[in-house]
Amino acid sequence: MTTTISHVKTDHYLIPLAQVLEDSMHGVMTGFEVVTARVTDSDGAEGVGYTFTCGVNGGAIADILAREMTPRVIGRDPSLIEAIWKELWWAFHYGGRGGPTVLALSALDMALWDLKAKRADMPLWRLLGGYDARVPCYAGGIDMHLSPEELVAQTHDNIAKGHRAIKMKVGRDLLREDIAKLAALRDAFGPDMPLMADANMKYSVDGAVRAAKAFAQFDLTWFEEPIPPEDPAGHRRVLLEGGIPIASGENLRSVWEFRTAIEGGVTFPEPNVTNCGGVTPFMKIARLAEAFHLPVTSHGAHDITVQLLAACPNRSYLEAHGFGLEKYIESPLQIVDGYAIAPECPGHGVAFDWERLNSLRV
Amino acid sequence: MTTTISHVKTDHYLIPLAQVLEDSMHGVMTGFEVVTARVTDSDGAEGVGYTFTCGVNGGAIADILAREMTPRVIGRDPSLIEAIWKELWWAFHYGGRGGPTVLALSALDMALWDLKAKRADMPLWRLLGGYDARVPCYAGGIDMHLSPEELVAQTHDNIAKGHRAIKMKVGRDLLREDIAKLAALRDAFGPDMPLMADANMKYSVDGAVRAAKAFAQFDLTWFEEPIPPEDPAGHRRVLLEGGIPIASGENLRSVWEFRTAIEGGVTFPEPNVTNCGGVTPFMKIARLAEAFHLPVTSHGAHDITVQLLAACPNRSYLEAHGFGLEKYIESPLQIVDGYAIAPECPGHGVAFDWERLNSLRV
Repeated sequence: MTTTISHVKTDHYLIPLAQVLEDSMHGVMTGFEVVTARVTDSDGAEGVGYTFTCGVNGGAIADILAREMTPRVIGRDPSLIEAIWKELWWAFHYGGRGGPTVLALSALDMALWDLKAKRADMPLWRLLGGYDARVPCYAGGIDMHLSPEELVAQTHDNIAKGHRAIKMKVGRDLLREDIAKLAALRDAFGPDMPLMADANMKYSVDGAVRAAKAFAQFDLTWFEEPIPPEDPAGHRRVLLEGGIPIASGENLRSVWEFRTAIEGGVTFPEPNVTNCGGVTPFMKIARLAEAFHLPVTSHGAHDITVQLLAACPNRSYLEAHGFGLEKYIESPLQIVDGYAIAPECPGHGVAFDWERLNSLRV
Repeated sequence: MTTTISHVKTDHYLIPLAQVLEDSMHGVMTGFEVVTARVTDSDGAEGVGYTFTCGVNGGAIADILAREMTPRVIGRDPSLIEAIWKELWWAFHYGGRGGPTVLALSALDMALWDLKAKRADMPLWRLLGGYDARVPCYAGGIDMHLSPEELVAQTHDNIAKGHRAIKMKVGRDLLREDIAKLAALRDAFGPDMPLMADANMKYSVDGAVRAAKAFAQFDLTWFEEPIPPEDPAGHRRVLLEGGIPIASGENLRSVWEFRTAIEGGVTFPEPNVTNCGGVTPFMKIARLAEAFHLPVTSHGAHDITVQLLAACPNRSYLEAHGFGLEKYIESPLQIVDGYAIAPECPGHGVAFDWERLNSLRV
């Protein structure tokens, strides 16, 4: 027995950051935007989706969702997510293949999957196939501005919170400053702690090769976004000449962009469910990675993404990186001894505290 | 002596189409959105830019321009366009590398170039290097729904308007219907009329190869967007196996995407100044094509684009395709004997009739 979509509610919030963050290319960040989409079906069941930004493009996302996507999905059967997704992809393609349009689609798609899993009375990770609720995770720091000592202190904090793997930012103007920070972490926490470095597209290809060779001594699990995402041949050079695995994907906006990136030289595809088009393409990207015998990792939105990686036999590490949203979620994700655990409640498991969020409305 | 940007005015209009248009993937179109950006400097000089959509994503573009980009450029020196462009590209990158964000940037960038050329008291095409004011052009029809007879009648109209080259839509479910239309045009207008066919990403790679082989007998100047834009390897197959030149670019959003497309198999790069990031990247794409010994063509916005191709020794054909905007432009582009002529007035030469546009405000 099918239902129809009777209502979609869009909201736009700005979550101020408790402390200012900084990376090599996004500069200083003072707040993250969250745009939510709540889909209600004709039985009154609700699915919730969201996307986020580093502080810009959020008004555009909310406009597309509220004013343009909502009228197109009212009355549709919410269980036909693939049909809705394909229709919206093409309806919004001219001027919308990428950017805020795909973030809007991601939020809507996530809400539809939440609704589907709730109606099936199943946690999303089981609905999507079910592999293992325990997902290895790491603490993703936005910490390029920290000194080696501050970075070690932050890492002690993260270990106290249950983390056993750490990602730090690199890309300072002086490569030796990045090296000093990596050395400080290896000195303090030993050779066995999984360690990643994220350059946020800072380098030229030559610069990334130089950095990768310098970082190799620290046995990194991966080197993330060494260069901008549009350069498959460049990624190939960094991989082959630099000699360490490469993660990338937070700035790719479709399964097709991931295919080109993987064929180039990305060995840890890293989709973000809030900006790759939603759960639908995230799972396709994860399965694509499996077809290439590659692990899949993730970017952002760990509360939802734990459900997706818990359905993937090729999952590597979930990125756990909060920007304060956990304060507005009723049961934030728990990290225990290096693992995030996908909850067993129906749906994707994230319930917002709408009343608390209300004061942050844009 | 430099000035500063004192004001940016954004407006959002919906131009209803006189007749409904249809192509293979965008479906039925009833109106085009136009979003304008007017930049005023501290001397009171004004530059005008615009972008357009097939009817969606326009609210998002206007929101980004008015609410987010404008405060970032107020007070900046408008002559430093490369500096402003780079800053905005990275400030809006997360969630904005593509889609409405790039269309917003395109409109702003166009306004800055218009302002620069006006201040130099020079038409834009001379400012950008100056090659030849006479630019070969073709009539770009959105006419997949027309019968062979209607298509021939439309082409007679276009020839009466000064056109000597014609592009038609293909991608009907039955390939033989496309073939019948191409045959009707060749029968009616002879073997020498430059003729292009545009599939708007309709085909699979296999389907595009089959279509290209079937179209080869009609000696097409190019086969446009045979497949979706994210598949460089697919374009290579279509080019090599299909045996006719390939145009693509209206759905690419940066010079970096064009490089990958050209390395794949696009032999007629086809940027759109209103969605590739503006005049700044359009000219880089044109020069990139030249570096590959390729012609450059264009998509949309022929009124402005004639200025850009008039600065390119490798220009092929300007697409002339109006969606009714010419009714709101004070001196619409004139087509004479197959050529569009870049005007000699300072700036990009397009002045909107703001009073007439006012009634179409969204």
